[in-house]
Amino acid sequence: MRNKLCAAALSVLVLSTATHAQEMKGDVAWDILAGLTSEVGPRMAGSEAEARARVWAQTRLTALGFTGVASEPFPIRGYVRGRDEASLTAPMPFRLAVTALGYSETTPDKGIEGDVVYFATLDALKAAPAGSLNGKIAFIDHAMKRSQDGSGYGPYGQVRRAGPSIASTKGAAGVVIRSIGTDSHRNPHTGVTNFPEGVKPIPAGAVSNPDADLIARIAGSGKPMRISLTLTGKTTPNMTSGNVIGDLVGSDPSLPPILVGCHLDSWDLGTGAIDDAAGCAIITAAALKAQEGGKLLRTIRVLWAGSEEIGGFGGKAYADKHTEPHALAMESDFGAAKVWRVNTNFWTSNKVLADRIADSLSPMGIVRGSGPVEGGTDVEPVIEKQKLAVVDLNQDGTHYFDLHHTPDDTLDKVDPAELAQNVEAWSRVLKIVGNEPGVIAP
Amino acid sequence: MRNKLCAAALSVLVLSTATHAQEMKGDVAWDILAGLTSEVGPRMAGSEAEARARVWAQTRLTALGFTGVASEPFPIRGYVRGRDEASLTAPMPFRLAVTALGYSETTPDKGIEGDVVYFATLDALKAAPAGSLNGKIAFIDHAMKRSQDGSGYGPYGQVRRAGPSIASTKGAAGVVIRSIGTDSHRNPHTGVTNFPEGVKPIPAGAVSNPDADLIARIAGSGKPMRISLTLTGKTTPNMTSGNVIGDLVGSDPSLPPILVGCHLDSWDLGTGAIDDAAGCAIITAAALKAQEGGKLLRTIRVLWAGSEEIGGFGGKAYADKHTEPHALAMESDFGAAKVWRVNTNFWTSNKVLADRIADSLSPMGIVRGSGPVEGGTDVEPVIEKQKLAVVDLNQDGTHYFDLHHTPDDTLDKVDPAELAQNVEAWSRVLKIVGNEPGVIAP
Repeated sequence: MRNKLCAAALSVLVLSTATHAQEMKGDVAWDILAGLTSEVGPRMAGSEAEARARVWAQTRLTALGFTGVASEPFPIRGYVRGRDEASLTAPMPFRLAVTALGYSETTPDKGIEGDVVYFATLDALKAAPAGSLNGKIAFIDHAMKRSQDGSGYGPYGQVRRAGPSIASTKGAAGVVIRSIGTDSHRNPHTGVTNFPEGVKPIPAGAVSNPDADLIARIAGSGKPMRISLTLTGKTTPNMTSGNVIGDLVGSDPSLPPILVGCHLDSWDLGTGAIDDAAGCAIITAAALKAQEGGKLLRTIRVLWAGSEEIGGFGGKAYADKHTEPHALAMESDFGAAKVWRVNTNFWTSNKVLADRIADSLSPMGIVRGSGPVEGGTDVEPVIEKQKLAVVDLNQDGTHYFDLHHTPDDTLDKVDPAELAQNVEAWSRVLKIVGNEPGVIAP
Repeated sequence: MRNKLCAAALSVLVLSTATHAQEMKGDVAWDILAGLTSEVGPRMAGSEAEARARVWAQTRLTALGFTGVASEPFPIRGYVRGRDEASLTAPMPFRLAVTALGYSETTPDKGIEGDVVYFATLDALKAAPAGSLNGKIAFIDHAMKRSQDGSGYGPYGQVRRAGPSIASTKGAAGVVIRSIGTDSHRNPHTGVTNFPEGVKPIPAGAVSNPDADLIARIAGSGKPMRISLTLTGKTTPNMTSGNVIGDLVGSDPSLPPILVGCHLDSWDLGTGAIDDAAGCAIITAAALKAQEGGKLLRTIRVLWAGSEEIGGFGGKAYADKHTEPHALAMESDFGAAKVWRVNTNFWTSNKVLADRIADSLSPMGIVRGSGPVEGGTDVEPVIEKQKLAVVDLNQDGTHYFDLHHTPDDTLDKVDPAELAQNVEAWSRVLKIVGNEPGVIAP
């Protein structure tokens, strides 16, 4: 009886251990996502938090069985946020929901104040006469709407990237833009702006969409409007950032590896869940899941890049350091919504392989694309340098710019089922390309 | 030729003026809503902005044809917001999205800091031994979910109303609660808390749902957690608030009037669009629309109450001052979503009239309720004092607590078609009760 009981207890134990192991395995992606957002938090490029994230990443990748896990530091010119405040002072007092843009000029502690000149579009600002904004604060509006492929971010994102420098050349003392985002919450969207050599940096902030709506209504009423703007953050040279890499070595280590990228840094307003802890979770879980039927032929290397948000410095550092040949590169950096489309740059040059990839994804409802590939900021430099094959697994971006670069980029925004769909799609692709013995030409 | 042209031009002018007048008429509700939110902005009880709102209200009601328009001041004990900041300092640094609750105790400028004790529910806090929170910061979680009738706000709202005073009696140095709200944005929900006579007020704030999720995850991990809390706002006696009233006098001014209420004050984080500029917009536009077929028998009085948010002071002041008899009272103070149900307290006592009301709303899909009436904070005191008949037009509250008392309570959240549905439903009811010659007994 005792033996029987013991055997039964043992079998329960074995079963439950197996189930637990399976659960743990199934949770690799969620655990990385939850860990980075809840144990590390925001991971601003060059910050102490980003450094903690690298230690966390090395520990986690090693525990997951990656080898050659390394932190590879590089210097950056960073941006350290200060106090972000803005208010309408006319026609009525109203506190705006504002964020500084990265590389904004620093205002005095008491801020600056000026008359507002409203521009409905970036083109309207470009058409403003030289000197016409002397001492004023330019407000730049725009009309970005949601799209599945996120294609609005290219053109409308120029309001953030180039608007402040254009306003500066017209004499503006400061600039405020409508956030480059598609939500309707009082959460502004940050992101970097650029002041090219020779253009005087000026204070530059973004207000939330409801705040921008209010400014547009006041502008429409013709009433004079004034804004007070306090952005005490500082552009800071000589900060240290870094990449973390790790390998799942293939059965033929002499073959060039498959590089899969994401970025470890995040903006500081949220906890960088969809941008881009989710990406690191997806690529890492998929690299492991692809080994389930047996070790792949090729090494899969994960690159958790640093300092993507403020200039793509991690990807450049990786390409400079890792001149050894690579076979193919992919990146996940567009949130955690479902993959809906696949693109490659070898539909014709390597039709058989490309078709196998598309056919493996087709049962999941993932359609073939026909557009150019994008790669991703962190793998682009090595793709360009080595002329690599690329597979893009395009995620649904309909709601991505509701959250991107906002305080709302937090863990609760990720649907575990959608995250798992990403891991499944990625693992199918990695299994195929990781077992491809021949050259994968783009 | 000249005459012909002139006649043509005149007819165009007449047409366009007529169209314009019609548009203006159709837009009474939207114009009030847009005006209060965009020209006045947030209207905190007792503030300069609330005083500006009263002037705005008097001007607008007079222009709309109301008579006896008056501002009726009363003194209040108010709350003046200061700097609201909170951060986790352990197990990792993280800046929380926090708001002070109204009547929170003031912290020193540098804030307070303490170990966090997590309570999943208000009952768990109540069960904590006396003295067990000495010097600590209590965090109170809860599980409020969306409901069409908003019934979660009663029980879960107790976390905000009573939680801080209960924590104080256990020795807590401060309290942070999960916002009483159903959204998932980094926008905390404010609202008043109460420290009864004899209970020491302590600093009390609310964090957004994603922040509360993070705190709950950390609590679940068992790691020690510390919060730094800076809430420099002040409870301030002897501030001036006030109600604004105006009448559309009926054809028999000797009959007691119908009272329709809303509140003019708002919380300060947003612009008080759904809470409660929309209510003032609805009742006022409906009172006018009800006269379209001819003047009503009874006077309709609008009450735009002050200081609802911080204690319902406006409703009490009205009931104290206006001891003249009233016929019936109604209020709109639950957002701007569609009316879905009607309730009265005279289904049986005045069945014929009640049936006429229900029958007039039935074609709009508005169903008969069977629950008790609520009235509304601003009309409740006069209802209780005079034992008045009440009609409740219940709005759909499914998303009301996504926005209520948050920075997100802004104009863009109101759907003009839903606002118009409210005006239509209200005007149907006002037409019926406003033309009722007999006593309307509850």
